[in-house]
Amino acid sequence: MKILVLGADGYLGWPTCLYFSQRGHQVTGVDNYFRRYASLELDCEALIPTPNLVQRAQIWEELTGKKIHVHIGDITNYGFLLSICQKYQPDTVIHYAEQPSAPYSMINQEKAAFTVQNNLLSTLNVAYAVKASAPECQIIKVGTMGEYGTPNIDIEEGWIEIEHKGKKDKFLFPRQASSLYHTTKIQDTDLLWFYVRTWGIRVTDLMQGPVYGISTAESDLDPRLMTMFNYDEIFGTVLNRFIVQAIVGHPLTIYGKGNQIRGYLNIRDTMQCVYLSAIQPPASGELRVFNQVTETFSVRQLADKVSKVGEKLGYQVHLKHFENPRVEKEEHYYNPQYTGLLEIGLQPHYLSDEVLEKMFKIVEQYKANIKTDAIFRGVSWK
Amino acid sequence: MKILVLGADGYLGWPTCLYFSQRGHQVTGVDNYFRRYASLELDCEALIPTPNLVQRAQIWEELTGKKIHVHIGDITNYGFLLSICQKYQPDTVIHYAEQPSAPYSMINQEKAAFTVQNNLLSTLNVAYAVKASAPECQIIKVGTMGEYGTPNIDIEEGWIEIEHKGKKDKFLFPRQASSLYHTTKIQDTDLLWFYVRTWGIRVTDLMQGPVYGISTAESDLDPRLMTMFNYDEIFGTVLNRFIVQAIVGHPLTIYGKGNQIRGYLNIRDTMQCVYLSAIQPPASGELRVFNQVTETFSVRQLADKVSKVGEKLGYQVHLKHFENPRVEKEEHYYNPQYTGLLEIGLQPHYLSDEVLEKMFKIVEQYKANIKTDAIFRGVSWK
Repeated sequence: MKILVLGADGYLGWPTCLYFSQRGHQVTGVDNYFRRYASLELDCEALIPTPNLVQRAQIWEELTGKKIHVHIGDITNYGFLLSICQKYQPDTVIHYAEQPSAPYSMINQEKAAFTVQNNLLSTLNVAYAVKASAPECQIIKVGTMGEYGTPNIDIEEGWIEIEHKGKKDKFLFPRQASSLYHTTKIQDTDLLWFYVRTWGIRVTDLMQGPVYGISTAESDLDPRLMTMFNYDEIFGTVLNRFIVQAIVGHPLTIYGKGNQIRGYLNIRDTMQCVYLSAIQPPASGELRVFNQVTETFSVRQLADKVSKVGEKLGYQVHLKHFENPRVEKEEHYYNPQYTGLLEIGLQPHYLSDEVLEKMFKIVEQYKANIKTDAIFRGVSWK
Repeated sequence: MKILVLGADGYLGWPTCLYFSQRGHQVTGVDNYFRRYASLELDCEALIPTPNLVQRAQIWEELTGKKIHVHIGDITNYGFLLSICQKYQPDTVIHYAEQPSAPYSMINQEKAAFTVQNNLLSTLNVAYAVKASAPECQIIKVGTMGEYGTPNIDIEEGWIEIEHKGKKDKFLFPRQASSLYHTTKIQDTDLLWFYVRTWGIRVTDLMQGPVYGISTAESDLDPRLMTMFNYDEIFGTVLNRFIVQAIVGHPLTIYGKGNQIRGYLNIRDTMQCVYLSAIQPPASGELRVFNQVTETFSVRQLADKVSKVGEKLGYQVHLKHFENPRVEKEEHYYNPQYTGLLEIGLQPHYLSDEVLEKMFKIVEQYKANIKTDAIFRGVSWK
C-alpha cells in the first residue's frame, strides 16, 4: 500500500511511519514542525532528543534499507497538499496533522484561533485533495473519545438509533466536548461526514482515548528512532506525565477529585488500530467509527498504579490534588463501547505493572532532561 | 439597549440596524463588504442599487435624526472586533457576519476554505470579545434550520432527551446538514455551546429557515433604505428568486422533484424574532435555541403560489424541473416544532397572495436590472 502520514513528526505520526515501513508499505511523511516550534515557544520541549524528520528517515534507511519519503510543509496550504497527493497517489491518508493539545487551545484567543484554523482547514484540504487526486483513497482521521464528553447514557461506537414520538432514525452519537481542541475534533467529524455523504469518499474516524507509552518494536532498534515524548502540561498525556513526575519527585498532579474516568490505550495498540483500519478500508460513502481504547481508568486509579510501581522501583511517590484548572465533571457515569477494533483483529496490550516498569526504565535514562517547571503551569479553562 | 450588528450591510443586517434604531436603541453596524465583493466577482450583483453602509447610515440620520455608528472592517481580525466591543460595550451582539450561501461554499476549495475560516473565526472571536469586554452581553447567532437536515423524526427546538438502555440525558438535537455552508453553522453551534458551558456566556441560536421579502416598515420611508436583494443562484433565496424569474419570463427553477419541504419566514418576522430575543435575553450559561420559521412549504408549493399570483398580474409563468445540482432528499419526512418564538411574542406575517403581490410590485420597478444569466449557473454539489 501507499501510505501518506500527515503530522509524521509527532508522537503518533513517527511511530506510524515506522510501523507501515517495516511491513513493506511505501510511506510518505509530511509535517510542518508545529510541535517543535510550539514546544520551543512555550519552553516545554520533549524529554528525549529526536533528530528532525528528514534525519530520522535517513537513520531508518541506514538501519533497514527502507525509504520513507519526507516533505516539510503545511497542509493548510492546499496547493502543497494537493501536489503531494497527486505525486504519491496514496491508498490511505492518515491525518494526524492537528494541533493536539487541549490546554494549548485554552491559553488565549490567538492559540484558540490557530487551533480552529489549523485543524479545520487541514481536514477540509484532506477531503478536497483526496477527492481531486485519489478518490478511492481511505482517509483515517484520528478523533478523540473526548468528542463524546461524559454523557449519562452508554457511549456507542459512533452512531446511535433514536426512537422519538414513534419514529426512528440513526444519527452520529451526540458530541459535547470539554475543550476547544476537542471541539475542533467534533467539527472535523462534521466536515468529513458531510463530504462522505456528498462525494462518497471513504473515511475512518478513530475516537481515541489518551495514549501512553514510549517505545515500539521499531524504535527499539535504535534510540534515535524514539518518538517525541512530552511530559509537560501542554503536550504530555496523563500517564506519561505521572511517570516523569514520579521519577523527578514531583507530586502526581491529580486535577480535582481524580474521579474522571477515561478510556486509554498503549501506543503500540494505536499502531495496530491504524494498521488494521488501513488494510480493511470502509466502503465508498461510508464514515466508519471506532472507539479506540482498550480499558478505562479513573485518574486516581492511574496515579495509584504509577505510585505502586514507582515505590517498587525505590521512588517515594506522592499524590496531590490540584484545584482543577479545567471545566469538567469529576463524578460521572462512563460506559463506552469499544468492540469494533477487536472485531477487525486488535490484540490489546493492557496496562500492566510490567508495562509501567518498562516506561520507568526508559524515562530514567533521560532524567537529566526533566524540567520541573514544565510539569504544571495551571492553564485555566476560565 | 446598545446593539452591535455584525454583517450590518447584508440582507438581514441592514434592516436589523433600522429596526432597532427606529425603536430608540443605540446601534453600531460592522461589515467587511464581503457580499458586495463576492457579488461583483461572480457577476451576480443585487437587484436594487444600495448605497454603501456609511451612506445608508447618513441617509437614515437625515431622514430620522437617529444615528447608526458604522465601522468597516473584518471581524476575523480579533483586535478590530475587540476594540469595537470595548468602545461600545454592547448589551446584545447580533452575529450575521458569515458567508451565507450554500452554493458559494460548494464552488471550489478556495471558496470552501474561505467559508470555514470566515464563519468559524468570526464566531470564535465574538465569543472571546464578549467575554473580554462585556461578559453579560447576549450573543444572538443566526443559525439555520438546515443544520438539522431532514431527519425521519420530529425536529425539536434545539434539544432532545434521549433514553437509551434505561438511562437518560439531554443533548443538542442531532445535526446533519446538506452543504458546507450549513455545516459551518453546525460548527458555530459546537463552538458557542462549548463556551457557554465553559465561560457562562449567554447565547441565543436562531435556527432560521429561508427568508423571503424585500421591504420593512423602515425601508418604506425611502427607497435608498432598501435591503440588498439578490435573485441569483448564489445569494438569492428561493421565493425571492421565483418572483424575479416570473417577472423576467424565466421558468421557475425547481430542483429535482420539488418535494423538498422547508420552513420559511418573512423578513419582517426575522426582525421581530431578533428583537424579541434581544429584549428577553437567556440566563448566563444558557444556550437558548429557537426554530425561526412561521410555516412550511415544499418548493413545488412555493412555485405554485408564485405562479398563481404572477398569472393574476398578467405574467405567463412556467415551471421547470432542473436536474438537482444539490445532494439532498427529494422525498422526506419533515415535522419541525416552532413554538418558542410565538411564546415570547412573535406575531407572524404568513405568506399570502397579498404579500407576494407586494413583492412583485417592488421587483417590477427594478426589472431593467435583472440579468437572466445570473439566475441559474448550476453550481454542483459533486
